[in-house]
Amino acid sequence: MAGRRPGRMEPTTPQTACFEAGIKFGSLYHQFAGTPVSPDSSASLERAIEEAIGNQPFCAGVDVEILDDALGAELAEQSADYTELTGRFMEVEITIEYEGHTVVAAMAMDGDYPRMELKQIEG
Amino acid sequence: MAGRRPGRMEPTTPQTACFEAGIKFGSLYHQFAGTPVSPDSSASLERAIEEAIGNQPFCAGVDVEILDDALGAELAEQSADYTELTGRFMEVEITIEYEGHTVVAAMAMDGDYPRMELKQIEG
Amino acid sequence: MAGRRPGRMEPTTPQTACFEAGIKFGSLYHQFAGTPVSPDSSASLERAIEEAIGNQPFCAGVDVEILDDALGAELAEQSADYTELTGRFMEVEITIEYEGHTVVAAMAMDGDYPRMELKQIEG
Amino acid sequence: MAGRRPGRMEPTTPQTACFEAGIKFGSLYHQFAGTPVSPDSSASLERAIEEAIGNQPFCAGVDVEILDDALGAELAEQSADYTELTGRFMEVEITIEYEGHTVVAAMAMDGDYPRMELKQIEG
Repeated sequence: MAGRRPGRMEPTTPQTACFEAGIKFGSLYHQFAGTPVSPDSSASLERAIEEAIGNQPFCAGVDVEILDDALGAELAEQSADYTELTGRFMEVEITIEYEGHTVVAAMAMDGDYPRMELKQIEG
Repeated sequence: MAGRRPGRMEPTTPQTACFEAGIKFGSLYHQFAGTPVSPDSSASLERAIEEAIGNQPFCAGVDVEILDDALGAELAEQSADYTELTGRFMEVEITIEYEGHTVVAAMAMDGDYPRMELKQIEG
Repeated sequence: MAGRRPGRMEPTTPQTACFEAGIKFGSLYHQFAGTPVSPDSSASLERAIEEAIGNQPFCAGVDVEILDDALGAELAEQSADYTELTGRFMEVEITIEYEGHTVVAAMAMDGDYPRMELKQIEG
Repeated sequence: MAGRRPGRMEPTTPQTACFEAGIKFGSLYHQFAGTPVSPDSSASLERAIEEAIGNQPFCAGVDVEILDDALGAELAEQSADYTELTGRFMEVEITIEYEGHTVVAAMAMDGDYPRMELKQIEG
């Protein structure tokens, strides 16, 4: 096409679905990282995160697991009896449904880094 | 006292209790403002905020009420079916117990501004 | 392929690039929404957001414009002389470079909703 | 006074000044904790935090120092070339002026805990 560089494209529907999945992960992480958390309060926080992010468009499922064992290990090494939520203390799976496409993405630790990854795209 | 300006003082115990109360309000507001919220997800968010801030030192009670009527009125005027949590949509009361002193403070709208106020100091 | 449902796929490189773009937008928005802001402080906040998000992987460019006119109009209608940063007060463009693919995405208001969109995918 | 328990009091002006100081510390910490930060981006973040919190009522001074040495030590031990801002990486001093009273408060690490403390009350 005249005036258009080869290789420049409009986003496809599955690409947009993947973009939407990314938005949810970034939102979840940066809204809730830093929240004071302990094993006693982790269950209510899991549920609130799931329902809060579940409000966002195209979100078909949000599953958050706060890792009480990892929290407990952290608390055993420090003076306070709570800590701040960060990637080390949670695993997340989010399912996006966007115009007939389903994207599943997850966050878990990859060594010392909380890796957010696309798992599967369907449709 | 030589070398000391008149009127300069070490903080008293009740003043420190008030400082602690302020910390909790600032924490609560800026941790959770911006959270996606709707009437369907407000109950889990209330509970998570109460338990999260309740982890902080000297916190004897945290009561959060998300105002579903105010949320509903907002949603009726906009295109999305959720909004972002902000001071207009919640009332908060926090009780601090610090070295024999009890401080009660609250946040509610004062006109268009979410006012955080000391209500009472005891002990 | 036996055992595999038709239509289920591994993510492609451009899809992953789009996912990464989404992560940056969600991060930016939910990290900085709620920040106290006024026309006097908007320039330093723009720069800090650009450099903070620019730290994230695959981020080749972050351009944040805080809309001082929109801020000014808001302040003219309220009692306080600052407000909280939200989508209404900023425009953002982010460029991701991921394994030879370049994704440009942007956020701007779409009516009353801060719309995050893929603009272009190249490579 | 009949019907009033001994020891229950209205807040004094200096107590309110201390409450206001606490609000600023909690706000600062929970707004900006989690921000992606590296030695290259710390200067712009310091300035943005100072100006953002400086918008809040009664704030006469905000001084934030992001500890590039502590950041550098952290980065040397991990795989990513940035980390998330947390109390370990900053020192903060805030001055409040409230109805003729000046309160200075600071945050710095106390062992492994980011301690926020009243330093001095004047007026």
